[in-house]
Amino acid sequence: MTTQNIYDDPGFFENYSRLPRSQDGLSAAPEWPSLRALVPDLSGRRIIDLGCGYGWFCRWAREHGAQCVLGLDVSERMLARAAEMTSDPGITYRRADLEQLDLGTETFDFAYSSLALHYIKNLPGLLTELHRALTPGSKFVFSVEHPIFTAPTKASWSLGPDGRKTWPLDSYQKEGPRRTNWLTDGVIKQHRTLGTNLNLLIRAGFTITHVEEWAPSDAQTAAHPEWAEERERPMFLLIAAQR
Amino acid sequence: MTTQNIYDDPGFFENYSRLPRSQDGLSAAPEWPSLRALVPDLSGRRIIDLGCGYGWFCRWAREHGAQCVLGLDVSERMLARAAEMTSDPGITYRRADLEQLDLGTETFDFAYSSLALHYIKNLPGLLTELHRALTPGSKFVFSVEHPIFTAPTKASWSLGPDGRKTWPLDSYQKEGPRRTNWLTDGVIKQHRTLGTNLNLLIRAGFTITHVEEWAPSDAQTAAHPEWAEERERPMFLLIAAQR
Repeated sequence: MTTQNIYDDPGFFENYSRLPRSQDGLSAAPEWPSLRALVPDLSGRRIIDLGCGYGWFCRWAREHGAQCVLGLDVSERMLARAAEMTSDPGITYRRADLEQLDLGTETFDFAYSSLALHYIKNLPGLLTELHRALTPGSKFVFSVEHPIFTAPTKASWSLGPDGRKTWPLDSYQKEGPRRTNWLTDGVIKQHRTLGTNLNLLIRAGFTITHVEEWAPSDAQTAAHPEWAEERERPMFLLIAAQR
Repeated sequence: MTTQNIYDDPGFFENYSRLPRSQDGLSAAPEWPSLRALVPDLSGRRIIDLGCGYGWFCRWAREHGAQCVLGLDVSERMLARAAEMTSDPGITYRRADLEQLDLGTETFDFAYSSLALHYIKNLPGLLTELHRALTPGSKFVFSVEHPIFTAPTKASWSLGPDGRKTWPLDSYQKEGPRRTNWLTDGVIKQHRTLGTNLNLLIRAGFTITHVEEWAPSDAQTAAHPEWAEERERPMFLLIAAQR
């Protein structure tokens, strides 16, 4: 395994399993409505989910007409939980290092990935492999942590003397690993600029069709006032591309 | 005129004319080498420059084989200076409000714009007009101030207690006018997220071919140590798209 498998760290997994998005699935993820809006009609399609976690999207895709779904994840614990929650022969979960895939040629008609690709070091390799595995015209919809969110040396809000909250951006152009303490110590994410994310997709052969720097909607902010700060700087980057 | 014409403000113009990029042209603009790398072979092409200023790019394009160049700008003073510096019947300078263009259909084979489109309110209208005016396969290369640079309520570096310089990002999702005091008081720029800039291009019919969040190269930083801070957060956004 070339990618850090933090999800099989017992402390991390324990904390992760308590997050709303782990317990209640897609509807508990604030960015899901925006991501869902980018997902095309799935009827009859063969789908791959890169970093499927508990398999929430795999099951949702089958409920929305997908012919079959392959969910890949590096974490045995995640896949075991996914299998427990699934009784559908149209869904296959498989353990895989996303940096070392062999997906065949034109095997899938849609690819999805939620908050997984910022752990990948060799993203160019993964995108080349994925491009080969998709049929022409297929869409690829994914989210990653936004580079504005991953860049800073100290990734937490600053409170100015005027009480104004700002995000202390620095190191934006310094691409590479970022060690954070999300849920446990020493989680390693790969920071890439927004330009790099897009250019890697383009060079792998994809056409960019939509780029969304996610922010809560007015309705979401009304229901969850604590999300308002997400409008000051984007936390998630949502991208739709076409093979 | 629907766009603020700050370049004809005498105080602004006086200060602008003293900038290195005004006096020495393209080579004095640190982002020019990156922007130039995105410009295709211009031989025999009909070119439009949106916000041509002193006409540096128009003259460069003719020196690099362009058949003819139309330079548009809202500022009479800029155009007068451009005309003074030009003796080339292949270049036409014309005063125009970029929000109210009528460029015809398939009139140009390449479009260029340097640091002008962040003044434009109706960017969707301009992009639709430009798409119509370009021949199929034509490239459009442009720069704007990066949204990370335009967003903040207080767009200046913060110095932390540890001496670390950070860029106090906020208001990123709040699109619309930003009043700044660059060279003179009350210059109004339009803040748009990076996603919005790209999605407007895509919706107008363009294909994104390259996105660059400009930073000085190692060689540039060695020659100009004062530019090093530009690596902490991007100031310019360079985009190449294809009709």
